[in-house]
Amino acid sequence: MSVIKSYSASGPKARVIPTNIERRPVGPNDVQIAIEHCGVCHTDIHFVNNDWGMTNYPVVPGHEIVGRVTEVGSSVKNFKAGDRAAIGCLVDSCGVCVNCEKGLEQYCLNGFTATYNSETTDPGGFTYGGYSTSVVAKESFILSIPDNLKGPGVAPLLCAGITTYSPLRNWNISPGQKVGVIGLGGLGHMGVKFGRALGAQVTMITSSEQKGEDARMLGAHEVLLSTSANALAKEAGSFDFLLNTIPVDHDLTPFLELLKTDGAMCVVGAVEPLSKVNAAQLIFGRRSLTGSLIGGIAETQEMLNFCGGNDILSEVEVIRMDGINEAFERMRKSDVKYRFVIDLATLS
Amino acid sequence: MSVIKSYSASGPKARVIPTNIERRPVGPNDVQIAIEHCGVCHTDIHFVNNDWGMTNYPVVPGHEIVGRVTEVGSSVKNFKAGDRAAIGCLVDSCGVCVNCEKGLEQYCLNGFTATYNSETTDPGGFTYGGYSTSVVAKESFILSIPDNLKGPGVAPLLCAGITTYSPLRNWNISPGQKVGVIGLGGLGHMGVKFGRALGAQVTMITSSEQKGEDARMLGAHEVLLSTSANALAKEAGSFDFLLNTIPVDHDLTPFLELLKTDGAMCVVGAVEPLSKVNAAQLIFGRRSLTGSLIGGIAETQEMLNFCGGNDILSEVEVIRMDGINEAFERMRKSDVKYRFVIDLATLS
Repeated sequence: MSVIKSYSASGPKARVIPTNIERRPVGPNDVQIAIEHCGVCHTDIHFVNNDWGMTNYPVVPGHEIVGRVTEVGSSVKNFKAGDRAAIGCLVDSCGVCVNCEKGLEQYCLNGFTATYNSETTDPGGFTYGGYSTSVVAKESFILSIPDNLKGPGVAPLLCAGITTYSPLRNWNISPGQKVGVIGLGGLGHMGVKFGRALGAQVTMITSSEQKGEDARMLGAHEVLLSTSANALAKEAGSFDFLLNTIPVDHDLTPFLELLKTDGAMCVVGAVEPLSKVNAAQLIFGRRSLTGSLIGGIAETQEMLNFCGGNDILSEVEVIRMDGINEAFERMRKSDVKYRFVIDLATLS
Repeated sequence: MSVIKSYSASGPKARVIPTNIERRPVGPNDVQIAIEHCGVCHTDIHFVNNDWGMTNYPVVPGHEIVGRVTEVGSSVKNFKAGDRAAIGCLVDSCGVCVNCEKGLEQYCLNGFTATYNSETTDPGGFTYGGYSTSVVAKESFILSIPDNLKGPGVAPLLCAGITTYSPLRNWNISPGQKVGVIGLGGLGHMGVKFGRALGAQVTMITSSEQKGEDARMLGAHEVLLSTSANALAKEAGSFDFLLNTIPVDHDLTPFLELLKTDGAMCVVGAVEPLSKVNAAQLIFGRRSLTGSLIGGIAETQEMLNFCGGNDILSEVEVIRMDGINEAFERMRKSDVKYRFVIDLATLS
């Protein structure tokens, strides 16, 4: 066991502050990573504040982890000290349920072990995340990073990236299809990049003209202003797929109307009750409203390889570890393009 | 043109009463049918009462029409006088949009012509339905009835039948799958029969123990009481597909929880805003909420042929034409097993 420098929160409304935590020793199947960068996800704020009533304090957030291998267990085959490696939202799952057998560890029927705040036999009793100098996890949950993907823009691929890549792949987005990405934030900006790289015609759907222009620079072919009833009416029934990244409950009616017959809208942002879903829009058009959660380990590796092949990185703003509380404040105001990434060298 | 005995309503809260209406003369592509039976759909009540604000009075309801051909136009190829024939919810569509080209006339992008209350160049300016002694429609919207399907139980196949058959086919329901049918009424009882005939393991999900027993007699393998939290919890995550026939807004949460990862719930009853859809259930399980509207003409014929091959009829209670208002009253109280069918001999 070793004591690791970390940042954690100790209770709701607490700031994230320097803390020493213990990591487990490196077991036979484990990989230890010295963390270089960790992305800052909205989920981190929810856990710090206990918004979902399930936080175990002290919580060390962070599940967009990139670094270098410092030690491997005796049975580890695919990693060695010095390799670049990454960890996303999952560090374990049952491995035997039908979903795990299909590589859908994110839907593990026995409950996956999240990178932080999940019960574990490790010291402390709960997993600790990437706001930390080091992490230890099972080899089978460690990702490889293609050589050409460098710098802090890799880290957000591990959550924002896979969260948008997985539904686009699951719903077979391909050339010739018209895809709308609703909302331009950490998730939305990755949705635009992936949709474009997959060959689809990509429209950014946003309430902000400025964000529309920003989205064009990221690769969106078109911009649709959701504040304009006229603009929405012109595009009614024209989309094959909508990736909805809005993080809160909202009226889905204007968006569902954009879908073609048999089209689907996938919600990846709002993990909460939706109060306005009009069944008539589903019935008169056989449309689907669906959702998607991050991705499995094999698919996350596929996504990283796809990013390597297409030179895709997240757009990020690098912060010091002690700038995290200010970053949280700015995220609450959507004041970030498009993801904060912590430089963990500032903690060591 | 000929004046036909019919029953129509003249305004909201009006009773359906005897009326003479004019039908168009039989054109070159038309088929005239002497109506023997017409099913009574909840939609009829909605139109009589103008619940959806779109009724054109006088309205002659009825879109589950079965009878015998009395006259055909000079270009008609597949029907001759004396043939048994049927008409469902559609009597025309644009024929040229992408959906019509795919045989999805029910999703015609230019708006299909409904069997009643749709604009037409016919006398009266609107189509008139099957509460009538005779009807004239285009050959391409006329269905053939397999010889072994006899009696009043054929009529409801034209709406209740296709409304439940189409989604089960579209979502590829097949042997080995576990299908839940939510609600036992005109739609639900057909869903049970079709699910069973397609080889699925069928569960009736109902709030009524009595309806559960009735569903078993119709072919359901299992019954799940939606009033029992324990029973629901035991079945969580076990269904491949749910056919939701509840006709009004309701909390979808207990039902979505029943779906497996990648499962879908198809709403065919509640054509209205849904106030309780929890996105977390869609996201943590990649579940879909979808809808479906009747079926196209080719699929409706396929459904009738499937019924012929599997000896499937609706369970009905036959009424006289002048019993229609009482039937509406009983339908409002769900007091019908499972569909009223008008014997039009009582009108002629």
